[in-house]
Amino acid sequence: MATKKKALAVKAKKAGSTVKVALLGFGTVGSSVAKLLAASKFSGIQLTHIYNRDVERKRTSEAAKVVPASVFWTEKIDDVLTSDVDVVIELMGGLNPVEGWLRKALASGKSVVTANKQLIAYRGTGLAKLAEKHGVQLIHGAAVAGGVPVITGMQQGLSGDQTIRLSGIVNGTCNYILSRMETGADYATVLADAQQLGYAEANPSADVDGYDARAKLCILSRIALRAELDPDTVATQSISPVEAIDFTYAKDLNCTIRQVSRAQLDGTVVHARVAPMLVPLTSPLAWSHGTQNMVVASGRFGGDVVFSGHGAGGEPTAVAVVSDLLSVAQGCGVVQLPVRKRAVTGEFMAPHYLRFVVDDKPGIVSGIAGALAKVGANIDSLLQKPGYPKHRLPFVVTTEPCLTSTIEKAVASIAKMDCMLEKPLCLQILVSEDIPE
Amino acid sequence: MATKKKALAVKAKKAGSTVKVALLGFGTVGSSVAKLLAASKFSGIQLTHIYNRDVERKRTSEAAKVVPASVFWTEKIDDVLTSDVDVVIELMGGLNPVEGWLRKALASGKSVVTANKQLIAYRGTGLAKLAEKHGVQLIHGAAVAGGVPVITGMQQGLSGDQTIRLSGIVNGTCNYILSRMETGADYATVLADAQQLGYAEANPSADVDGYDARAKLCILSRIALRAELDPDTVATQSISPVEAIDFTYAKDLNCTIRQVSRAQLDGTVVHARVAPMLVPLTSPLAWSHGTQNMVVASGRFGGDVVFSGHGAGGEPTAVAVVSDLLSVAQGCGVVQLPVRKRAVTGEFMAPHYLRFVVDDKPGIVSGIAGALAKVGANIDSLLQKPGYPKHRLPFVVTTEPCLTSTIEKAVASIAKMDCMLEKPLCLQILVSEDIPE
Repeated sequence: MATKKKALAVKAKKAGSTVKVALLGFGTVGSSVAKLLAASKFSGIQLTHIYNRDVERKRTSEAAKVVPASVFWTEKIDDVLTSDVDVVIELMGGLNPVEGWLRKALASGKSVVTANKQLIAYRGTGLAKLAEKHGVQLIHGAAVAGGVPVITGMQQGLSGDQTIRLSGIVNGTCNYILSRMETGADYATVLADAQQLGYAEANPSADVDGYDARAKLCILSRIALRAELDPDTVATQSISPVEAIDFTYAKDLNCTIRQVSRAQLDGTVVHARVAPMLVPLTSPLAWSHGTQNMVVASGRFGGDVVFSGHGAGGEPTAVAVVSDLLSVAQGCGVVQLPVRKRAVTGEFMAPHYLRFVVDDKPGIVSGIAGALAKVGANIDSLLQKPGYPKHRLPFVVTTEPCLTSTIEKAVASIAKMDCMLEKPLCLQILVSEDIPE
Repeated sequence: MATKKKALAVKAKKAGSTVKVALLGFGTVGSSVAKLLAASKFSGIQLTHIYNRDVERKRTSEAAKVVPASVFWTEKIDDVLTSDVDVVIELMGGLNPVEGWLRKALASGKSVVTANKQLIAYRGTGLAKLAEKHGVQLIHGAAVAGGVPVITGMQQGLSGDQTIRLSGIVNGTCNYILSRMETGADYATVLADAQQLGYAEANPSADVDGYDARAKLCILSRIALRAELDPDTVATQSISPVEAIDFTYAKDLNCTIRQVSRAQLDGTVVHARVAPMLVPLTSPLAWSHGTQNMVVASGRFGGDVVFSGHGAGGEPTAVAVVSDLLSVAQGCGVVQLPVRKRAVTGEFMAPHYLRFVVDDKPGIVSGIAGALAKVGANIDSLLQKPGYPKHRLPFVVTTEPCLTSTIEKAVASIAKMDCMLEKPLCLQILVSEDIPE
């Protein structure tokens, strides 16, 4: 009994004990973390080290003014790794050299708080084992959806449920682009704006092609579905071929278009996909605008739970980092449940939206209908807006639910038709339950 | 250092140790808790006792079939309180006799998981102190918003922020009634339906008059605003005078009507109110339908974070209870931050919606306008739908932002006019920032 009682007891904080904290990276998020710590003066937490390349530039920046004079600024990582700090906050991003540094930190008894989604998606399991081995914590609430406590909420608040499905908008850049296109802007203009505003990188591929969201989906799947997925096996589809006309047709279908990251447990397999999808206007996913993030977790017992808020930006992300730091500093653990490796398939049973741009002539519809009929896909509607030139005519076909691989086969065959001026765009239409039976 | 390292370490679970659990109350939620435990077979957790009045009826019920044969069923509370259980799950509700039982449980080294909102709202601080004194946990994630992890999410995931404002829909009964009235049904019919469906009590006062939501608002304020409020000092307004016609006018104002619970920190004072309010259709609060709950927490750094889902019902509430149980069983603590007692005021600076039902004759509008002018409230719009009899004419005035006490003074004076057939209805129109300057 004594052992058990001890295990259940709330850890008493030692009076006067202080947790020493090092910050790796003093960029947008790092400086916001320093700002929040300065603003709230949490007792028992002391920022002691800041590491950054070219550290002098950072130390003399405007953002550094909130940093206590006692903090040791360094560009030598070993100054941190060999120090007596208790917690390392990592905000550098990427796998290299960060993974090695954090392994050293964990192995020397330092807990780690990180916002590094790629690291956690690809190396999270190994790092967690290392943390456990050394009796320290590895916590990453900021790795997905910034200031929205979706990781904490699912890990602690939904642990009693069996989450079977996740759908989320977890890339703020894509959501900014698509929700602005919803109001009539075209992709190139909005992407350029996003780049100017600092929402999108010069090379936007990680965002628009779905690799960023894919890493986040894998992190969420590990926590909510208790399924470990290899991020490289999750199918992605770029948002870049989506055009303003698609929002017009989507609206006619009572939908909008969002980059949706979805994963669904089906026995021992997980159906997962990151892609632009048609989202019904009645779905919570259609509510999120701009850089907002949203995750819907569907539980066997608790039904749908929605988390929403600011997924990016220095201060919202810093909220998640500092919340994690408080949790570590106060010795709170997180609920641990068994996680299994799961195979991934990109296959869904869903209605699809097909948009063609054709040089109009007789026989096109019959050709398309024939290709769909050949694979057994039924047409649900055919939409053609007036006012477009016949030599460059966009029109839309929606299908009844069919398998992803089936519709892709039909689209590949349609793409070869002479009249096709562009690669046809094929988007899943999101409905609540659409894994293959 | 050794002490500190230990404080940061994740608690190791002893191999083979089992946490013994007692359930107080085998009603809708209690039997769902048993069902979830049976379905998920969490390792290290064993249900050992179930207490209920008239226990034989429960033990032989259909719902009891999932309960392991080893469980000891009892109607004597001392069988639980003097047992060696580690965790007591309390699902009885009310202050008496539950408070005394839980005090005994905590004092004898048992952790407590409870869904009892009245108990936590009125006695939470004292019980938490008792738990701390005895080195055990008191955790109540199910006390607000059932299966929506808003307490966990705010307590752990937003601890790094400074939450300054809360708005929520936390009473599923009122939300069911109001969102059905939105589609044209009248209050009495919908209330009767809600009673038949088990959403509303025979005496619906606790729900419709706002007392249930008030208790929840106080619990949320303690966690998010770190402000301890006396629930009895929070202003409430019943939803019962809201009529179908109000939804018609609300729609003209691009709003709907919801029972909103709101609290906002303003220096050392908290502005708090539970009342039916006009909610813009663009607000997340307008999205929630039926028995859904929703809480929006607005942080100084992280902005608005939305939590939404099923706020009531056996299984969603059981998700919160079982999640709390896992957290306690695995020795996870919760982030503790200083909480201060705060004075409460019901005063807001807000636009208001006034609906009158009059026996139409000349001079009414002038009388109303005069009464508003006398207190310095400006009319923003005057709405009068055609098609109503002149001897029983409903019409609406909206005002520019003014203080709650100011508009109430004007309404009291207008109510005395001869032509008034009903007490005027005065509702706050929700805008994002409206505490007095």
